[in-house]
Amino acid sequence: MKRVLKWGLIGGGKGSQIGEAHRVAARLDGDYQLTAGALDIDPQRAKEFADELGIPSDRAYPNWQEMLVKESAHSDPIDLVTIATPNATHYEIAKAFLEAGFHVLCEKPLTLTVAEAKDLVALAKRAGKTNAVNFGYSGYPMVRQARAMIDQGELGKVRVIVAEFAHGSHADAADADNPRVRWRYDPVQAGVSSVLADAGVHALHMAGFVLGQSLYEISAHFDSCLAGRKLEDNALLSLRYSEGTIGHLWTSAVAVGQCHGLNLRIFGEKGGLRWSQEFPNQLYWTPLGETTRILERGADYLSPEAQIASRITVGHAEGMLGAFGNLYSDLYRKIVDPVAKPLYPTFDEGLEMVKAVHAAVDSSKEGGVWKRL
Amino acid sequence: MKRVLKWGLIGGGKGSQIGEAHRVAARLDGDYQLTAGALDIDPQRAKEFADELGIPSDRAYPNWQEMLVKESAHSDPIDLVTIATPNATHYEIAKAFLEAGFHVLCEKPLTLTVAEAKDLVALAKRAGKTNAVNFGYSGYPMVRQARAMIDQGELGKVRVIVAEFAHGSHADAADADNPRVRWRYDPVQAGVSSVLADAGVHALHMAGFVLGQSLYEISAHFDSCLAGRKLEDNALLSLRYSEGTIGHLWTSAVAVGQCHGLNLRIFGEKGGLRWSQEFPNQLYWTPLGETTRILERGADYLSPEAQIASRITVGHAEGMLGAFGNLYSDLYRKIVDPVAKPLYPTFDEGLEMVKAVHAAVDSSKEGGVWKRL
Amino acid sequence: MKRVLKWGLIGGGKGSQIGEAHRVAARLDGDYQLTAGALDIDPQRAKEFADELGIPSDRAYPNWQEMLVKESAHSDPIDLVTIATPNATHYEIAKAFLEAGFHVLCEKPLTLTVAEAKDLVALAKRAGKTNAVNFGYSGYPMVRQARAMIDQGELGKVRVIVAEFAHGSHADAADADNPRVRWRYDPVQAGVSSVLADAGVHALHMAGFVLGQSLYEISAHFDSCLAGRKLEDNALLSLRYSEGTIGHLWTSAVAVGQCHGLNLRIFGEKGGLRWSQEFPNQLYWTPLGETTRILERGADYLSPEAQIASRITVGHAEGMLGAFGNLYSDLYRKIVDPVAKPLYPTFDEGLEMVKAVHAAVDSSKEGGVWKRL
Amino acid sequence: MKRVLKWGLIGGGKGSQIGEAHRVAARLDGDYQLTAGALDIDPQRAKEFADELGIPSDRAYPNWQEMLVKESAHSDPIDLVTIATPNATHYEIAKAFLEAGFHVLCEKPLTLTVAEAKDLVALAKRAGKTNAVNFGYSGYPMVRQARAMIDQGELGKVRVIVAEFAHGSHADAADADNPRVRWRYDPVQAGVSSVLADAGVHALHMAGFVLGQSLYEISAHFDSCLAGRKLEDNALLSLRYSEGTIGHLWTSAVAVGQCHGLNLRIFGEKGGLRWSQEFPNQLYWTPLGETTRILERGADYLSPEAQIASRITVGHAEGMLGAFGNLYSDLYRKIVDPVAKPLYPTFDEGLEMVKAVHAAVDSSKEGGVWKRL
Repeated sequence: MKRVLKWGLIGGGKGSQIGEAHRVAARLDGDYQLTAGALDIDPQRAKEFADELGIPSDRAYPNWQEMLVKESAHSDPIDLVTIATPNATHYEIAKAFLEAGFHVLCEKPLTLTVAEAKDLVALAKRAGKTNAVNFGYSGYPMVRQARAMIDQGELGKVRVIVAEFAHGSHADAADADNPRVRWRYDPVQAGVSSVLADAGVHALHMAGFVLGQSLYEISAHFDSCLAGRKLEDNALLSLRYSEGTIGHLWTSAVAVGQCHGLNLRIFGEKGGLRWSQEFPNQLYWTPLGETTRILERGADYLSPEAQIASRITVGHAEGMLGAFGNLYSDLYRKIVDPVAKPLYPTFDEGLEMVKAVHAAVDSSKEGGVWKRL
Repeated sequence: MKRVLKWGLIGGGKGSQIGEAHRVAARLDGDYQLTAGALDIDPQRAKEFADELGIPSDRAYPNWQEMLVKESAHSDPIDLVTIATPNATHYEIAKAFLEAGFHVLCEKPLTLTVAEAKDLVALAKRAGKTNAVNFGYSGYPMVRQARAMIDQGELGKVRVIVAEFAHGSHADAADADNPRVRWRYDPVQAGVSSVLADAGVHALHMAGFVLGQSLYEISAHFDSCLAGRKLEDNALLSLRYSEGTIGHLWTSAVAVGQCHGLNLRIFGEKGGLRWSQEFPNQLYWTPLGETTRILERGADYLSPEAQIASRITVGHAEGMLGAFGNLYSDLYRKIVDPVAKPLYPTFDEGLEMVKAVHAAVDSSKEGGVWKRL
Repeated sequence: MKRVLKWGLIGGGKGSQIGEAHRVAARLDGDYQLTAGALDIDPQRAKEFADELGIPSDRAYPNWQEMLVKESAHSDPIDLVTIATPNATHYEIAKAFLEAGFHVLCEKPLTLTVAEAKDLVALAKRAGKTNAVNFGYSGYPMVRQARAMIDQGELGKVRVIVAEFAHGSHADAADADNPRVRWRYDPVQAGVSSVLADAGVHALHMAGFVLGQSLYEISAHFDSCLAGRKLEDNALLSLRYSEGTIGHLWTSAVAVGQCHGLNLRIFGEKGGLRWSQEFPNQLYWTPLGETTRILERGADYLSPEAQIASRITVGHAEGMLGAFGNLYSDLYRKIVDPVAKPLYPTFDEGLEMVKAVHAAVDSSKEGGVWKRL
Repeated sequence: MKRVLKWGLIGGGKGSQIGEAHRVAARLDGDYQLTAGALDIDPQRAKEFADELGIPSDRAYPNWQEMLVKESAHSDPIDLVTIATPNATHYEIAKAFLEAGFHVLCEKPLTLTVAEAKDLVALAKRAGKTNAVNFGYSGYPMVRQARAMIDQGELGKVRVIVAEFAHGSHADAADADNPRVRWRYDPVQAGVSSVLADAGVHALHMAGFVLGQSLYEISAHFDSCLAGRKLEDNALLSLRYSEGTIGHLWTSAVAVGQCHGLNLRIFGEKGGLRWSQEFPNQLYWTPLGETTRILERGADYLSPEAQIASRITVGHAEGMLGAFGNLYSDLYRKIVDPVAKPLYPTFDEGLEMVKAVHAAVDSSKEGGVWKRL
């Protein structure tokens, strides 16, 4: 019988969108059983919701600390813990569970500070445990196809990359004081960056993921377009990568009319690629001097990395929950077979993104000077 | 604790695409536990695959007959059975399980003959059991939005509907004798119709589903474009509906360059709608005399029927497995609350589609004369 | 110095859209000088408008009969006459000018009856004069590319063609009695067919143009969706071509939300093509078993027929007036070099379209029986 | 009779794409007669090509100096002169013709230096003559619609503008030494900037044109992606406008797969707009909190500025030559009626673009510091 992993969830309580997304993603392939949880800051709500989800009552914990102690002592403990709590708590929870020997999937951002992120990376290495950060968009089959094509040299040296994650969700001045929106622009609650740390970083991660390069330096301009915002709701980053690719990232929360706005364009010596999250089943490829071709998810000609990330035949639409589910199936493969090399984003990538956000913040404060990571 | 339904699956063995799709769909919302199965015509393979899927060995049946007997006698029997076996077996299996008091989801076509389909409809009515046919595309949120808008009169009387399901999967003459393709054009194995019964019927069902009308009469022209095919690989149907809407359906398996090809256009007195399965998260709406608007899945302005069919926020792509999952969640709602009125397709709709295919076949044989259903 | 042809225009008076389109098209390449005209049924308005357009007053005629007489007697007569008068007058004017030895471009339909059209074809042959019908959409570069690719065998035998010209311009019931609309559905003014003869016939012509085949037989269903209309505002035609291609044409004037709605899809043994008038600079090509490629107007890889039909470099949009202008430049080439073989539509094609409309009308009256042309 | 203006052309000789585009544009509406020209640096070729174009031999000049002298002395001189010569000559020719009292349309860039551009602006003001720079893309109807909507407050205060003109025409390393390409990256021939001055400046002009604001400051990063290039083939500009709008411009010549790549996105307090040159007949408008609407060129609901810029009914494609022709028809209106206020780009706008290019060059050299214009 196929091994089903025991999965624990911290945070992601009732009404949390990301919590529900994690649960659907984990269910998709039948790889996990939700076995334990500390789902809410309110112990009573945590219990009730755990019960609703079918978590046995003795593993429905009032808080992550008790979950840590009891699962560590359990005869048949959880295999993987997902951390979907507020950003400021990621560090201590991830640290504690790694130290206790659990595999960890942490929501982004990995941590609030670079030092904390470095600490977790080092700890994860010592612990030898599977560690992942939820840059879930990297699970899309056609993003993996792009990565495979670049890795195989189909584009030659990549010269320029253009990444965007620009939506209009916080554009309404009449809604700016809605608590659901306001906290995002309050440094006390959101940290040093708003839209870059929240949205843009997904596009930035994806850029590095497909390039297979690390960020070398950043020049950034941040703006707050709505009066009273202390953090940026629009940012432009110039990027330089380790192997010479240049590019830019635009991220915004005031781009009225862009429903989601995550997309990527890549231009190499031998060809170009284009992909958009809103229409994720197509990848547009133009070999130098030739016509543009539309690559379709699920088609025979795709790379193994893209094939394995699909669940239905070509022509059918697949979406974000499938992409997200691919991170869970990647982690499954890694946990059941530690020598496997699935493509989920690791703490190293989480660290790079924490560094990038801080470098961009610093650059912007100094008028756009280049900052090395 | 939320009630989890016990689910049984007949057919859909290892390597079956539709079987895997059913399993993902049933898992998506955590509503079902795969509890019993007769997954393969080969008893040994059935057992092995059931084991792989985690079905307890005492409910991993060698055939549906034994499953019927044992589940009927079980103290805690399955709630819903899905029939994903070859078309010719649907009738007897569905009949047997309905008579034994199970809720049934049957793959399309419901049956091979109109008489059988009528029989099942009558039986389901007597049995008072939930009965569904897997026209899974009708689960897409924006298809349900279209239905809701028409139902609420946003389009006024619908004058014309244009439905297509035209792909190029069987266009390659070099591949025509591949057994995977050939059986589809062999009347002995496929019945009276090929591409209409296999693909076109999905679009035809969707047309009636969004219109809320039944088919009144059909005029059809069938063609076999590849030499040696005894059944149609291209068909054009003229349609007349019960409340006066006219329209047409084009279905094809030789439409090279169309990856999937299911789409719908609807034209009423007061506006028009347009939707395509390959880009399912957008519905294009043109109120008469105004600009075309792009409705987005997950947006606040959608109907409750569309809202409940979404699992992630606006701007993210959702796909076919979500649509398919909506049929399972509809059935869940119906089974746990028999007075609920979810939108899954019933045996009545299955019967109408069997009638429509036969009417089209007959019309085509007689040069396109109109045939009433 | 390049020879500039002397051009005469009959009809197309002030405020006429088609008249203005002819004038822009004729000006585009500097090939013609508007030298004579009988621009309006009202002699006074004809004179005034001719003056406005810079036509010398002695060649600003009060009616086509006087224009015929005087231009025939002129020492330096016009080279080409365009007939843009009401449909019922095409026959006698075209006949008269052909007999007098002029080259003729006639607006569509060539004539109202098949007999008249046959007569003009025969007369044109005897006269040896350039004769053209304004199926202007066939001048689009990418339509010519499609024709060239099919001619060169890129698609192999074409199996299926799907043509559409379906717009929503006459969908508004509140506007149905507007004289600008009403006459189109009045048999006395519009003849035997409305939307097919007016719009659909363009798509039908284009289908035959790219296929290089003639129509063999037609089965049609006509409908009038708005109460009180005596002619069809929606029609579906099944088509069979001389060399075995099958297909269908949908034309409508009640397709709310379709701005223009002329498009073509072509499916052959070896590949498929797709083109839409609203986005005319791209032609989508899918070789069998491969990815879809986007061919771009103006690109190096296009056929000579497409290259010559472009006026600006790749990537720039070109539009309908350029397409229309290509008919005028084709005619220029033919007139200055009678052995040239430019691609403008001839009276033969005009005749075929008159036959097709009548066959469709007859088929529809008889419930959709097949009618040979 | 309508007044037809006498038009003179300097440069734009045989084989020149821009010369041919000017001639088509000037012919489109029958507003101009090509009356005089100095079409080529080679006097013999100039004569021959003038003859081919039908320019009377006594006004087919061997050089612009002779044209200036003779047209100035002519009893019926040209009304408008177009300067389509190499960039370095614009200044002296424009200066000379303005001083002699002619209306002038100058190709972009207006001049090579800011001082020269300022000089021409001042001179044009003194001379009181119509002066224009050929930012031809601003003639597109839907660009004018965007401008009108912003001007009328439909978007409220514009917060962010994103402009692009990024193509892949100079991406091929194997073609980099082709003289047709190489000169563009040679400072001696091309001046201080390559792709920004050549392509990007069109998008930058369009941004200001639709905003109705002037540029306040620029921060830029230039890159040369191909080895050996001394000027940029990729540039990213951060922009700040006079009334507080921020934004960015990306321009590139190595964006393989982008055929043309000019597009604009505009985000205001009350809505967003999106337009692309490759599909110029649609403007996407999203009012805050509502669905995206597709505005169509030629539709009744458009502004008068957009209506007057169209030549054919809604649904038909229009293209670049129509847009370009609108500059000529604007100039016609201005010349025949000096109090008219058509929207063609003036020398003031030409000056601003020269300033912008220099500011960007300077900023890039200093690591991206902000430069005021």
